[in-house]
Amino acid sequence: MVLARVDGTVVATRKADRLEGLKLLLVRVLDPKGKPTGPSFVAADAVGAGPGEVVLCAQGSSSRLTPLTENRPVDAVIVGIVDEVEVEGAVTYAKGAA
Amino acid sequence: MVLARVDGTVVATRKADRLEGLKLLLVRVLDPKGKPTGPSFVAADAVGAGPGEVVLCAQGSSSRLTPLTENRPVDAVIVGIVDEVEVEGAVTYAKGAA
Amino acid sequence: MVLARVDGTVVATRKADRLEGLKLLLVRVLDPKGKPTGPSFVAADAVGAGPGEVVLCAQGSSSRLTPLTENRPVDAVIVGIVDEVEVEGAVTYAKGAA
Amino acid sequence: MVLARVDGTVVATRKADRLEGLKLLLVRVLDPKGKPTGPSFVAADAVGAGPGEVVLCAQGSSSRLTPLTENRPVDAVIVGIVDEVEVEGAVTYAKGAA
Amino acid sequence: MVLARVDGTVVATRKADRLEGLKLLLVRVLDPKGKPTGPSFVAADAVGAGPGEVVLCAQGSSSRLTPLTENRPVDAVIVGIVDEVEVEGAVTYAKGAA
Repeated sequence: MVLARVDGTVVATRKADRLEGLKLLLVRVLDPKGKPTGPSFVAADAVGAGPGEVVLCAQGSSSRLTPLTENRPVDAVIVGIVDEVEVEGAVTYAKGAA
Repeated sequence: MVLARVDGTVVATRKADRLEGLKLLLVRVLDPKGKPTGPSFVAADAVGAGPGEVVLCAQGSSSRLTPLTENRPVDAVIVGIVDEVEVEGAVTYAKGAA
Repeated sequence: MVLARVDGTVVATRKADRLEGLKLLLVRVLDPKGKPTGPSFVAADAVGAGPGEVVLCAQGSSSRLTPLTENRPVDAVIVGIVDEVEVEGAVTYAKGAA
Repeated sequence: MVLARVDGTVVATRKADRLEGLKLLLVRVLDPKGKPTGPSFVAADAVGAGPGEVVLCAQGSSSRLTPLTENRPVDAVIVGIVDEVEVEGAVTYAKGAA
Repeated sequence: MVLARVDGTVVATRKADRLEGLKLLLVRVLDPKGKPTGPSFVAADAVGAGPGEVVLCAQGSSSRLTPLTENRPVDAVIVGIVDEVEVEGAVTYAKGAA
């Protein structure tokens, strides 16, 4: 999984039937300190993530292993909202901290 | 999934039987503002996308999770036509806007 | 899928049983104009591709979705021989053209 | 699989149900000498790895092939704790060596 | 698949049960001339490859498509020992040649 930040939303009216009802969020990959370093991509939301939140994304076939995304043509899904990242004993990211 | 722009078409007369009847489009990965930044690849079209449109592409095994692409040897599929991308509260791409 | 050019062949006498009988070709990823830009890799041939031909390659689990490659340990397969690539209304590659 | 070092932990209280009970570790890809060279990512722990340990990570659908991770939306799992890496006859990494 | 050279071995005493009995080799991706150009990774050995040999590696879910690796948490497997690579009519690598 990767750490990512929810940056926005993607709206697609015309889409594959099996995407109906999924919230599609634009996310960007973060380093362990919460700094954007990687590419942006679009993930289905399985946990009710909001804008700016740091989340955990699963990619590939594992994206279909949540009840919301089962059998759907999605290759990335948000599976958790990150509360804290700790690296070598120090907290490098904490939700709510400035 | 990734945001991508439909740049063209690929014609292959001699091909695997299970590719018959699929429209194969050349797409290029975009950043959230709709600027081409990533590589070009070929995706099967599951939604009737047209040239120049900004689309949502699923890759990997999830490409086979639409009725059109089921059991076919495709590793990328267009699953939606993007109407709008919003980043941090601002619309960065809107279909039809110049 | 990616556009690729058949550059050569790979011979492996000692191999997994399930690779027996497959032709293994060395291919290199091309940009939409047919210029080699990407990495080289080895793909199973499902369409009878020849040296120098521009082909369409599927990768990942979808590589096993042709009758020839079913249940085999291959992660790339040639699924089509490209006749023409058209980008923004102009032909950027045509088979047989110099 | 890749060699990686366990750098930290990720805590996510709100998450997909099927992630419950999994320990999520932050790991970073290493070169054969144990030097961090690759990206950081988050892996489920299937072997009880501790901070600073060099581990073996499997990615993609194979991440679900341990009893702990079966049917869960994870795309990376720690499947071994590395005791020794040997390159061209010389030990380049040994657990416990300074 | 990719061409790779067997550079060494990885020993992991504590590991997922389903990895038991597999030989884990450190390999490095080669270009068509046999020059190391890509990253190093760890692959299960399904063909009895030895140090220094040029091999063919399959990655992803296809890694589990050999009798030795079936249902195991591996994402890379050596499926062949390369005897010869030919590019544009010229042999660029031959086993045993200096």
